[in-house]
Amino acid sequence: MPSPAGFAVTPVGHVRSPATDPATAPKQGDEGAPRSAIVLAPEVAEAAGDLGAGTDVLVFTWLHLADRAVLRTHPRDDPALGLRGVFSTRSPDRPNPIGLHRVRIVEVSREGASVVVTVDDLEAVDGTPVIDVKPVIGPAGRER
Amino acid sequence: MPSPAGFAVTPVGHVRSPATDPATAPKQGDEGAPRSAIVLAPEVAEAAGDLGAGTDVLVFTWLHLADRAVLRTHPRDDPALGLRGVFSTRSPDRPNPIGLHRVRIVEVSREGASVVVTVDDLEAVDGTPVIDVKPVIGPAGRER
Repeated sequence: MPSPAGFAVTPVGHVRSPATDPATAPKQGDEGAPRSAIVLAPEVAEAAGDLGAGTDVLVFTWLHLADRAVLRTHPRDDPALGLRGVFSTRSPDRPNPIGLHRVRIVEVSREGASVVVTVDDLEAVDGTPVIDVKPVIGPAGRER
Repeated sequence: MPSPAGFAVTPVGHVRSPATDPATAPKQGDEGAPRSAIVLAPEVAEAAGDLGAGTDVLVFTWLHLADRAVLRTHPRDDPALGLRGVFSTRSPDRPNPIGLHRVRIVEVSREGASVVVTVDDLEAVDGTPVIDVKPVIGPAGRER
């Protein structure tokens, strides 16, 4: 059995976005998310050294406003869709509120010792903690 | 800036696999990973209630054997490939060692109050903590 105590996730950066209200933010990145940025902390600048404009990456966030006690929910907050187990939905409300976002990098720049990665299609509100970035791999962009 | 204190991620289950040695385990699920299972804890059984055989899901693990201090690495442990920032690799060694695995569900069954999800193509060793399960969505299985 896994450790019941859990593990400590440490933010490596945060989202900078004009979107501040989760209630009105788009639920998926192809639903009109504004251009935004991932600001990566100086401590992980070396890990970000090979990120480049024009590539797609997977951004992992910690959806800090989520309700971690929710096990079943109405998909897309629509009561007509019925209740579903959260492991069959992308609801932020779930035991570990990890957000997964596929985004296209527009630009990579520096602000002091921080790395600023400007992206399209990131559906996360301003200040959302970023916990990981991974390349897209696999046939035809299929994720593993 | 994000909270420097971090967040507590709590395992919702664990991997049951014949693979026990990370050194010999396949690095990606399409490289010969054995059939294995995700054993979900009774506390989250309700969240797993809509998982069904024949569908693909994304499994998130916490790669508990990883070295979290690594910021640059040789992809696929091959020195010939040169050093790359870990945000441009799928190396388990990274600040937050989250594993992302796309798997196909073969069967969903019960063991007492636990939910056992048998899957193909999961490249994680026996005992690896599972921290989330999400459906695959988007055009042509594209992840967001």
